[in-house]
Amino acid sequence: MERKLNVVLLGTGNVAYHLAKRLDQIEDFVLIQIYGRRLEKAREMADAIDSQPEATDQTSEIVLDADYYIFTISDSALLTVWRNMPPTSGIWLHTAGSVPLSTMLPYHTASGVLYPLQTFSKERRLDWSSLPIYIEGANEFVKKRVEHLASALSSLVYEASSEQRQQIHLAAVLACNFVNHLFTLSEDWMLRHSLEPKALLPLIEETVAKVKVMTAREAQTGPAKRADEATMLKHQTMLSEVNPNLAKLYQMLSQSIGQMYLKNPAND
Amino acid sequence: MERKLNVVLLGTGNVAYHLAKRLDQIEDFVLIQIYGRRLEKAREMADAIDSQPEATDQTSEIVLDADYYIFTISDSALLTVWRNMPPTSGIWLHTAGSVPLSTMLPYHTASGVLYPLQTFSKERRLDWSSLPIYIEGANEFVKKRVEHLASALSSLVYEASSEQRQQIHLAAVLACNFVNHLFTLSEDWMLRHSLEPKALLPLIEETVAKVKVMTAREAQTGPAKRADEATMLKHQTMLSEVNPNLAKLYQMLSQSIGQMYLKNPAND
Repeated sequence: MERKLNVVLLGTGNVAYHLAKRLDQIEDFVLIQIYGRRLEKAREMADAIDSQPEATDQTSEIVLDADYYIFTISDSALLTVWRNMPPTSGIWLHTAGSVPLSTMLPYHTASGVLYPLQTFSKERRLDWSSLPIYIEGANEFVKKRVEHLASALSSLVYEASSEQRQQIHLAAVLACNFVNHLFTLSEDWMLRHSLEPKALLPLIEETVAKVKVMTAREAQTGPAKRADEATMLKHQTMLSEVNPNLAKLYQMLSQSIGQMYLKNPAND
Repeated sequence: MERKLNVVLLGTGNVAYHLAKRLDQIEDFVLIQIYGRRLEKAREMADAIDSQPEATDQTSEIVLDADYYIFTISDSALLTVWRNMPPTSGIWLHTAGSVPLSTMLPYHTASGVLYPLQTFSKERRLDWSSLPIYIEGANEFVKKRVEHLASALSSLVYEASSEQRQQIHLAAVLACNFVNHLFTLSEDWMLRHSLEPKALLPLIEETVAKVKVMTAREAQTGPAKRADEATMLKHQTMLSEVNPNLAKLYQMLSQSIGQMYLKNPAND
């Protein structure tokens, strides 16, 4: 029997939490250590893991001979942690959408990327099996090792270059972070007018159900698609009384829709 | 046994189509006539209905003694159709989010509103039972009649004033039309970079699954929430090379998120 592959996890945020929980379920891998800038948070996460990983806030205490080091810390903190890392064996991986692999290579040659395309919240259980993971490796050896790990996490593993991954990350910001912000704005608007925000849920669910069976372009409806200027103007007036920035945002989004569905006047 | 209640439907768009299909399923109501500006479209819809309603493109041919007249035509065409309607008995209802009941009253006293909060596409089957319907009536008699019809269509019937309905419609535009547009922009972006757009679906589904169990405000993630200026600047640069308007939209949405999660510097 082959020995289990040791993993050190660096980070205590939402992605780190879900990765730790997932690794705990996988036979071939064992999470042996969690590093966090705040020892308390690293301990808290370690306590939630069956394999009882060690917790540390000192880079000098990091295990040197693990098979994988997974850095799931904020983009801005990555460089600092890499700079302070002791020389280790094993593969280094980061999980960031927007950080090119080349940024990491000066600190460790056997480096790669494991980018799970998902939004992570600690409160949620995640279905890893249907979660696309985009991988990259500095060379064929690393790529195979990343693939081995990624395939254990999910059945949807794709290769993507640093440039492609940045494009995916940008698309994800549009389709998830911005979409969720619009959900927040709509919930706030309902609450402001003493209406139940959750009444929007069937509409939101149908909006998503549609893009599962047709393109979003085909699924578009609403005043901007219909070029219903009167309604758009009314909405902008309603918004500008409360929040001029939101009125401007409404106008820009409506214009963007309008431009997309603009018919060629010559064909009318 | 009471007689069935007769309904005349005016309009041949997506809402009209789904209403016609739904009325066809309900024992107590019978769709007897469909009016459309284009006879062909009215005929096409009538043919799809078991009760075999009559199709017409002439307001002069509209049945005068129906119980309900439901106007599901574009906001801008409503006034023209009302102006050309013959005097009828029965209740007149419109289904528009943004049209106040007062606009309709000069044409018919027994008027009301039946506003289904949903996005309608002909390609989709709809679950009417969980679809919120907001109703309004010019008086108690009308209100009861609208409620009777709405309750037959769905189990989620709420009263809403014209002003409330406009607020709901605005929230729906944010949560559905604008959200779908962001889905379109993200699909387009993936395609532009030869990436599979449907790989975003697990992310999109999780984004919606989250707002079912927490507030959207709590669910927010992403560079703007983290105040990750480097990533936002990179994304804006990537977008501005392709579409400066989209870069501007990215900036506005990020600013809107940033303002919402801005910590009070005094507390830092």
